Amino acid sequence: MARFDSPLLTRTSQHWCSLVLKNFDTFLIDHADCERKAAVTALSLVRSYPEKSKLIEPMIALAREELAHYHDVHKILLKRGVVAFKSKPDDYTKTLRSHARDPRDQRLLDLLLLSGIIEARAHDRLETLAPHIKDKKLNSFYTHLANIEAGHFKIFFQAARHYNSDKVVDQRIKELVAIEDRVFRSLELLPRIH
Amino acid sequence: MARFDSPLLTRTSQHWCSLVLKNFDTFLIDHADCERKAAVTALSLVRSYPEKSKLIEPMIALAREELAHYHDVHKILLKRGVVAFKSKPDDYTKTLRSHARDPRDQRLLDLLLLSGIIEARAHDRLETLAPHIKDKKLNSFYTHLANIEAGHFKIFFQAARHYNSDKVVDQRIKELVAIEDRVFRSLELLPRIH
Repeated sequence: MARFDSPLLTRTSQHWCSLVLKNFDTFLIDHADCERKAAVTALSLVRSYPEKSKLIEPMIALAREELAHYHDVHKILLKRGVVAFKSKPDDYTKTLRSHARDPRDQRLLDLLLLSGIIEARAHDRLETLAPHIKDKKLNSFYTHLANIEAGHFKIFFQAARHYNSDKVVDQRIKELVAIEDRVFRSLELLPRIH
Repeated sequence: MARFDSPLLTRTSQHWCSLVLKNFDTFLIDHADCERKAAVTALSLVRSYPEKSKLIEPMIALAREELAHYHDVHKILLKRGVVAFKSKPDDYTKTLRSHARDPRDQRLLDLLLLSGIIEARAHDRLETLAPHIKDKKLNSFYTHLANIEAGHFKIFFQAARHYNSDKVVDQRIKELVAIEDRVFRSLELLPRIH
């Protein structure tokens, strides 16, 4: 079902929420990891395309915000006495990113749109989960996080529109969202963001 | 010449300063890049060693600080109307990092000490350069930056001491500082940090 202000075709299920609530520490470790990876992805776009000057400011700002969230989640893990471990590979992101085409400029378009879609999925996860968390502090943390991360996908889509026509961007969003939906539905349900 | 509170054996020359002052935009692009890379390096240590819990807090804090500096330098570039370009490979850092030994725990020790030494060199560069910058705002920015980055190498050395005896750490610092000195002296003088 399409949602207002989200590009995604399918929402996260309540079944996923139950799985997360039963394995909350595992979820937290993965969530911390996702925030770190989101920061690194934004920085790697800047590294690969330093000449796209309109990209740099929003990507640095985004990376700083993601790192602040990573810091927050790490503090929650510390408080709970949870020691992290190396996460399993993230098949969702890996599969999606394999759809980025060459050459260079087309690749940037695809990477920006895919990053936006991956952000939209993370937001969908957090937004669905937050109201089900019973602990007051954690509930309020995740509600706040879902709110402030709601617009992240738009930062990537807007960056893509700086360097491509709306027609090209809209068509590619349509294609990549359909791919995301297939990948999202095909993967095993796990207590993690992706 | 050994300096108080720096592990390095050789200081940056005035000749390097003159080269930078003549190619300041090139230097700024490289400096921005160095701050970005420093943040990514701190985050990659956390990714590779998530179970070393004493490492995570200082590395996240450091990455956040480096990103804030990256943001500052990017704003200076924007103001000057400088469009960045993809930097040439950084032979200094690459050569130094090739000295990190396996297995895993020894590798962590070496990566931490090398990161500390690379930070110490960056600080040595900025500290030598700052007083020679004529533009008041830039002079004050680089003087401030040199001051707050002065202690960065210690963060890495201290992290290494959490997981190794002082004897092992001190001995390895001695070896790696000697390697750094050889690499530093052997490379072509360029208007960049490393």
